[in-house]
Amino acid sequence: MTDAVTKPHDRLAAALSDDLARVDATIRARMASEHAPRIPQVTAHLIEAGGKRLRPMLTLAAARLCGYDGDHHVRLAATVEFIHTATLLHDDVVDESDRRRGRPTANLLWDNTSSVLVGDYLFSRSFQLMVETGSLRVLDILAGAAATIAEGEVLQLTAARDLATTEETYLRVARGKTAALFSAATEAGAVVADAPDAVVRALHDYGDALGVAFQIVDDLLDWEGDDIGKDVGDDFREGKMTLPVIRAVAAADAHEREFWARTIGKGRIGDGDLGHARALLDRYGTLASTRRDALDWAARARAALDAVPPDPLRDLLADLADYVVARIR
Amino acid sequence: MTDAVTKPHDRLAAALSDDLARVDATIRARMASEHAPRIPQVTAHLIEAGGKRLRPMLTLAAARLCGYDGDHHVRLAATVEFIHTATLLHDDVVDESDRRRGRPTANLLWDNTSSVLVGDYLFSRSFQLMVETGSLRVLDILAGAAATIAEGEVLQLTAARDLATTEETYLRVARGKTAALFSAATEAGAVVADAPDAVVRALHDYGDALGVAFQIVDDLLDWEGDDIGKDVGDDFREGKMTLPVIRAVAAADAHEREFWARTIGKGRIGDGDLGHARALLDRYGTLASTRRDALDWAARARAALDAVPPDPLRDLLADLADYVVARIR
Repeated sequence: MTDAVTKPHDRLAAALSDDLARVDATIRARMASEHAPRIPQVTAHLIEAGGKRLRPMLTLAAARLCGYDGDHHVRLAATVEFIHTATLLHDDVVDESDRRRGRPTANLLWDNTSSVLVGDYLFSRSFQLMVETGSLRVLDILAGAAATIAEGEVLQLTAARDLATTEETYLRVARGKTAALFSAATEAGAVVADAPDAVVRALHDYGDALGVAFQIVDDLLDWEGDDIGKDVGDDFREGKMTLPVIRAVAAADAHEREFWARTIGKGRIGDGDLGHARALLDRYGTLASTRRDALDWAARARAALDAVPPDPLRDLLADLADYVVARIR
Repeated sequence: MTDAVTKPHDRLAAALSDDLARVDATIRARMASEHAPRIPQVTAHLIEAGGKRLRPMLTLAAARLCGYDGDHHVRLAATVEFIHTATLLHDDVVDESDRRRGRPTANLLWDNTSSVLVGDYLFSRSFQLMVETGSLRVLDILAGAAATIAEGEVLQLTAARDLATTEETYLRVARGKTAALFSAATEAGAVVADAPDAVVRALHDYGDALGVAFQIVDDLLDWEGDDIGKDVGDDFREGKMTLPVIRAVAAADAHEREFWARTIGKGRIGDGDLGHARALLDRYGTLASTRRDALDWAARARAALDAVPPDPLRDLLADLADYVVARIR
C-alpha cells in the first residue's frame, strides 16, 4: 500500500476516490443558488482553485477506517470544505489579500461585500448539511470548532503587532486557524461511524496535532519560502506574531527590541529590515527550534493513531503527518 | 389586557419580563470570550445599543402561548438575537455604513475586520446555543433561515442598480433581510413547545407576514422619514430597488426611465434628483400603493393567528402587527 514515490496526499485521494467524487458532487449541488448566481461564481472560483480537499479527506478517512458504510460522511466532508472555504473568503477581506495560491482572491475579482456575504452563505449551507446527518453529537463538535475558529481569528487580529504575545496565544491562534477544523473533521468522521470513545478521542488528537504542525510549517514557510506562491515576509509586514518571532523577541537585547518594536510593533518597515529580521531569527536559532516543534507535533499526530485499529487508511494518515512537515525538512 | 396608550411592544416586554431578563443574562454570558476581549467590546456596543429585542420576544411569546414551561425558549431567543446582531455587523461592512440607530457603527469605531470576525463569532455562538436545545427540528428551521438570509443579502447586492428587478425579487430580498428570521423565531418557539402542526404553521406564517410588513415599512420610511435616525434618500443613493421605485420604474415613460437609469442605475445623482425622484413616486402613487401592501401584510399576520389558541400573548402579537405598520399610517 505504501509507496515511497507517490505523495501520501495523492495516495489518500486514490484510496478515497469514490467518496471524494461524491463529496465534489455534493459541493457543486449545494453551492448552487437559483436566485443569486453571484454565489456559485464566487465559490467556484475558490473551490476549483486547486484546493487539495485535505479536510474532506480527513473526515472520509476517519469514517472509513472506523468501518462506516453509510452516506453521512460525504455530507460531513462537504460541510468541512464549506466551512474552510467560507473562512478563506472572510480571511481575504480581513487580510486585504490580493493573491491566494498564486491566483487573485475573490475580493479582488469581485468585492469585499461578495466575500463577506458568500462566506455567510457557505456557512449556512454547511449548517444545513450537518443538520441532515441527524447527529447532535456531530453538530456539537462542529459548533465547537466554529466557535474556536472565530475566536482564534479575533485573537490573531488583536495579537498582531503586540510584542507581548505568548507562545500560548500563538497555539490558540494556530488551533483557530487550522487545527480546530482538522480535529473536528477527523472526530466527526469517527463519531458518524459510531466508533468507540477511545478511537474518537485518538482521531481528534491526530487531527489537532496534524493541524498545529501544518500551521507551524505554514508560518515557517513565510520566512523560508517555497513554491506555492506565498511571498516571503508577508507575515513580517503584517506584524504577525508567529513562533520564530515570538522567540526572537523573547531573546532580544535592548537594541534588537527596538528593531522589533519599530517593525512588527509599528509596521514601519524599510529596505533591509526583512533581511535583518531574518538574521535575528538565525542568531537565536528560532527557525530551527520552530522546525523541531513542527516535527514534534507531527510525531504526536502519528502516535495518536496507535489507539486506532490497524487499517491501510490509518497508515496513510500516519504518512500524511510526516508529509505535512516534509516541506521544511 | 389591551391598553390603547402603551405600545404593544412594551406590553409584550412587560408580559415576558422574566424571560427577557434570562435572555439578556444568556446573551451576556455567551458573548464573553476569555481570550479575545475585543469580542464583548464590539458586541456590547451593538447589543446594548437600544435594540428592542423584538426577535427574542417573538420566540418567547410563541413558546409561552403554546404552554411551554422549560428553558430552551430562552436559549432560542438568545440564538435569534445573536444571528440578528451578526447580520447587522456584516451588513455594516457591506453597506459601509457609519451610523446605525443614530450611533456610530462598529466598523467605524473599530474596523471592518472586527465586524466580519465578531459577526462570525456570534454566528458560531448562536449555533452552539441552538445545538443545546437538542432539537433537530429547531436546528433545521434555523439552518434554513440562515441560508435564506445569506441568499437574500447576496440577491440584494446583485439587484441594486438593476432597473429590471421584479417585485418577486424584492419579496425574496425582504424575506432574507427580515422575514426569514421573524418566521424562524416564531416557528422555533412553537416547535420547542411541541405545538400541533397547524399552530406551528400559523406561527410561522405570522412571523413571515409580520417580517415582510416590517421590511416594506422600513423601505417606505427611507422615502418618508421618521424619528429613528434614518436619513431620507439613503436607499436612493445606494441604488436599492425597493417597491416604490420598482413600481415607478415600471410605469415610467422614456424620459423618466432615463432619469432612473442615470440615478438608480448609474448612481450619478445631483442636486434636486432626490426631490424629482420623490415627485415621480407621487405621480404614480407608488408610496400609497406600497403603504397598502404593508397594511395588507400586517392584516395577513393578524389573520394567521386565528389558528392559534386564544391567549393574552396571542392578542399582543396581533396588536404588534398593527403597530409595525402604524408608523406609516
